[in-house]
Amino acid sequence: MDYTLTVGLGTRSYPIHIGSGILSRLGVCLQECLQVKRYAIISDERVAGLYGAQVLRSLHAAGLAGEIFTFPAGEASKNLTTIAALASSLAQKGFDRGDAVLALGGGVSGDLAGFLAAMYMRGISFVQVPTTLLAQVDSSVGGKTGVDIPEGKNLIGAFYQPRLVLIDIEVLKTLPRNELLGGMGEVIKYGASLDADFFHYLAAQREQILALDASAMGYVVHHCCALKAKVVEQDEREGGLRRVLNFGHTIGHALEAASDYRLLHGFAVAIGMSAVTDLAVLCGYARAELKQEMTTLLSAYGLPTAVPPELDRKQITGFMQTDKKSVGGRLFFVLPTELGKVLVTDQVDQAALAQVLVSQ
Amino acid sequence: MDYTLTVGLGTRSYPIHIGSGILSRLGVCLQECLQVKRYAIISDERVAGLYGAQVLRSLHAAGLAGEIFTFPAGEASKNLTTIAALASSLAQKGFDRGDAVLALGGGVSGDLAGFLAAMYMRGISFVQVPTTLLAQVDSSVGGKTGVDIPEGKNLIGAFYQPRLVLIDIEVLKTLPRNELLGGMGEVIKYGASLDADFFHYLAAQREQILALDASAMGYVVHHCCALKAKVVEQDEREGGLRRVLNFGHTIGHALEAASDYRLLHGFAVAIGMSAVTDLAVLCGYARAELKQEMTTLLSAYGLPTAVPPELDRKQITGFMQTDKKSVGGRLFFVLPTELGKVLVTDQVDQAALAQVLVSQ
Repeated sequence: MDYTLTVGLGTRSYPIHIGSGILSRLGVCLQECLQVKRYAIISDERVAGLYGAQVLRSLHAAGLAGEIFTFPAGEASKNLTTIAALASSLAQKGFDRGDAVLALGGGVSGDLAGFLAAMYMRGISFVQVPTTLLAQVDSSVGGKTGVDIPEGKNLIGAFYQPRLVLIDIEVLKTLPRNELLGGMGEVIKYGASLDADFFHYLAAQREQILALDASAMGYVVHHCCALKAKVVEQDEREGGLRRVLNFGHTIGHALEAASDYRLLHGFAVAIGMSAVTDLAVLCGYARAELKQEMTTLLSAYGLPTAVPPELDRKQITGFMQTDKKSVGGRLFFVLPTELGKVLVTDQVDQAALAQVLVSQ
Repeated sequence: MDYTLTVGLGTRSYPIHIGSGILSRLGVCLQECLQVKRYAIISDERVAGLYGAQVLRSLHAAGLAGEIFTFPAGEASKNLTTIAALASSLAQKGFDRGDAVLALGGGVSGDLAGFLAAMYMRGISFVQVPTTLLAQVDSSVGGKTGVDIPEGKNLIGAFYQPRLVLIDIEVLKTLPRNELLGGMGEVIKYGASLDADFFHYLAAQREQILALDASAMGYVVHHCCALKAKVVEQDEREGGLRRVLNFGHTIGHALEAASDYRLLHGFAVAIGMSAVTDLAVLCGYARAELKQEMTTLLSAYGLPTAVPPELDRKQITGFMQTDKKSVGGRLFFVLPTELGKVLVTDQVDQAALAQVLVSQ
């Protein structure tokens, strides 16, 4: 079953198509939705090896031109050096403002390609074709793009909306198990922070979901995109409401940085959700049972819930202070109050925070 | 005499204050216009040496905090490496979304600082304090920011509007003569392409202008900003009308690139204007007398009107093809039809173009 939804942002609105086997119909989909005739396909070497030829064939069959530009797989590529190299390659091949950048891959490809599209010639069209669960349910929707600097993740970037998002559930079959579970960390975040019914659905349908049953997975991806779209429509540039999407992320990002990005994003978010639930309980915002519900579901999907003992606590706290969500030195936390509900506050007791990072 | 004008761009509107001695009142001006309490001042080493201490004093006197970040003077610094270094410095000093970036300097500082502001934490407030004539009449107004890559100038960047522009005419007194004349190249562009009366004013007031008479220069800077604001208000992202501001620039940019950026921007634009006037005459868009009027004024301000013989013609043509204003492979030229009037066309005879580059 195919789903289509729209992210409503006025003149910058765009559709998301979700279905099984979309990748083989990519060229036709592009031709139906956009005027663009030439695509710079940005992909890491692994994904380009898996799907590059198929994508090019599909473009050519629809009378479109495409050129693949690759970079080494992994978060370590997500920096300005890669951006500079890609921009030079595009310029050498004569790409201009009438062409488009197409991200084929996971979050790193999407963030890199989106930022490249935002800044190449001060902005050219951008299409997202996410191939990881994490990218499908989160990073491909909402227009956040960017790269890392040594001081922190995504500290450089742009809000830049794609003109189209095409999501093929089928490709999740080639996704390494770890990355699938990491993606589920982000999926569970939507239930835990915004939708208790969805949280319970995830508990009940665990087997079908982990077996990549097309119907269950199609529903999951569509539901996450719809929840995210609703938030982004109300607060595109993270002035307020959008902060709720960062449930588990303030601590999660710091954990990723402290682990030198060896910890997968979804795993870090799972630990982060678990830690802020502790924090919410400690500060009296939530009942102790909430922690139990949270960790039960996270563990059922093979996700960690405790800060790895080898990570330096001081370093974690330091990375939190330079989080880009801090404003005027104030650091905001998204705390759960009950299943499917959160509040945003900068009033967090430092002693409680320290306790949560140590005791877990 | 002080001038104030507004660039009207809806929620992104901002004021431009022009006057003599504004730099010494900088802190008070900032405090009156913005809520921001902390400024990252981006400046090249030369300008920081001239004005850095004065600016910091002025900020502190107004109860504001400021920190100066420098880079080596010159176009060679305008790249992603400098951006990465500046972003890291800001992060290390704890700058966040509640703070602002302030450009103190010429076009390179403004372009770098503006792009830094656009992408640091996906966008923080930005203030322009241009100290060269070129930056005061052109690059500080309109929100174009960016850096160079080896394949061309400004091929990476963003449209990002400042929240305030403060222009001190007084600082032009420390500007090297060459840079003053280069700035006049851009000033003459406004008259030649948009305002014949202003063109004649520049001819009549040459002496006062070159002597930096405060009244004449204040009028010149204000008039250029007002002309540019009117264009930008109608076409912020260069979809159409804004292209007229590129009079002399399609060839000018290519000349700068072919000279390895040894040719000053304003000088390159002067040659570019002269060359496209030849082109317009050759193609029958303008009378031959227009070339005479154009070169007479440019020469009166000590500006060149012929392509330097040492530059490689083939290389110039090559750089033109990768100009970011080309769309779908079409290259647009802004051709003068009479004094103060231009048309934009992609219908330029290649033989005529070659002739113009050789014969001048």
